[in-house]
Amino acid sequence: MPKLPEILKREIKQSQLFKVEQLELRFSNGVERRYERLLGRVVGAVLIVAVRDDGQVLLIREYACGTHSYELALPKGRLEAGESILEGANRELMEETGFGARSLQEITSLTLAPGYMAHRTHVVLARDLYPKKLEGDEPEPIEVVPWSLEHLYSLSQREDCSEGRSLAALYLVRDLLQQEASNG
Amino acid sequence: MPKLPEILKREIKQSQLFKVEQLELRFSNGVERRYERLLGRVVGAVLIVAVRDDGQVLLIREYACGTHSYELALPKGRLEAGESILEGANRELMEETGFGARSLQEITSLTLAPGYMAHRTHVVLARDLYPKKLEGDEPEPIEVVPWSLEHLYSLSQREDCSEGRSLAALYLVRDLLQQEASNG
Repeated sequence: MPKLPEILKREIKQSQLFKVEQLELRFSNGVERRYERLLGRVVGAVLIVAVRDDGQVLLIREYACGTHSYELALPKGRLEAGESILEGANRELMEETGFGARSLQEITSLTLAPGYMAHRTHVVLARDLYPKKLEGDEPEPIEVVPWSLEHLYSLSQREDCSEGRSLAALYLVRDLLQQEASNG
Repeated sequence: MPKLPEILKREIKQSQLFKVEQLELRFSNGVERRYERLLGRVVGAVLIVAVRDDGQVLLIREYACGTHSYELALPKGRLEAGESILEGANRELMEETGFGARSLQEITSLTLAPGYMAHRTHVVLARDLYPKKLEGDEPEPIEVVPWSLEHLYSLSQREDCSEGRSLAALYLVRDLLQQEASNG
């Protein structure tokens, strides 16, 4: 397991990344309530399920600041200006795993907590992989961990694998590949 | 489909619910970076997968302010002070679905976006249900929608079902129940 970064300084302050919007709402039954929601930077996010020919999926182990821990999850990132979802997915895949994909397909998009966040992540299935490394902006090298789709429950029971959207995306791809296989 | 609430007013302001913490980090290779993460109110959240005797799971349709839409997802809520995870899960289940559970079991906990959020949701499997309604603080009645665990992929393809942690929890319960069945 990698050594966690050292926290040099921490302070509460106005965010560069997040804004909070307060809304006053009137429901159709006349009840009025005040709600808060988080607005993020308005760019899409992508989550990539890259399946190798042997059926293993590429996970990455990366530092997660929110939990101050190393987390095992799917490669992901924010789209850059002018980039399509599939272009961004392939770029992030190359930066984070050292592989590109000849086949890319968006299978769904997921929210995190729609009750108070607008954030939406596009899930992209990547196949027909080939070695291709792009330099990203990561502060340290990322470890790539291949994982079998047959062992998702045991993955969910690991302390270092907790991200709901990654687990959902892995299960959805498992279902989709099983459907494809049974359709011949 | 219910009629969306009317937005009476919206403004960007300091949050009642969220704080942003800025951290300066030094990675083990010496690289220094600045990160931001969201701190929520420090109480746990619970997500309940309530399985009826006929194998259907109880989803709810509820207004989601983040996406300003009605979302189909698992019942969920915040723990109250002094409440255990299982107590809070049963209370939220009674408030949101009108059922209590004689059997409650935490199966895992999920993060939303560990890269920039510390938020963690405890996933509770609830079985042996009985009718029991508690009044919650919902602004309008919640619709309960039973859903078969056999049809999770089609659930994920609905526009009104997008929450990653709900889909992950449903798949994990499906796996767990299949394991139980095959172990006799």
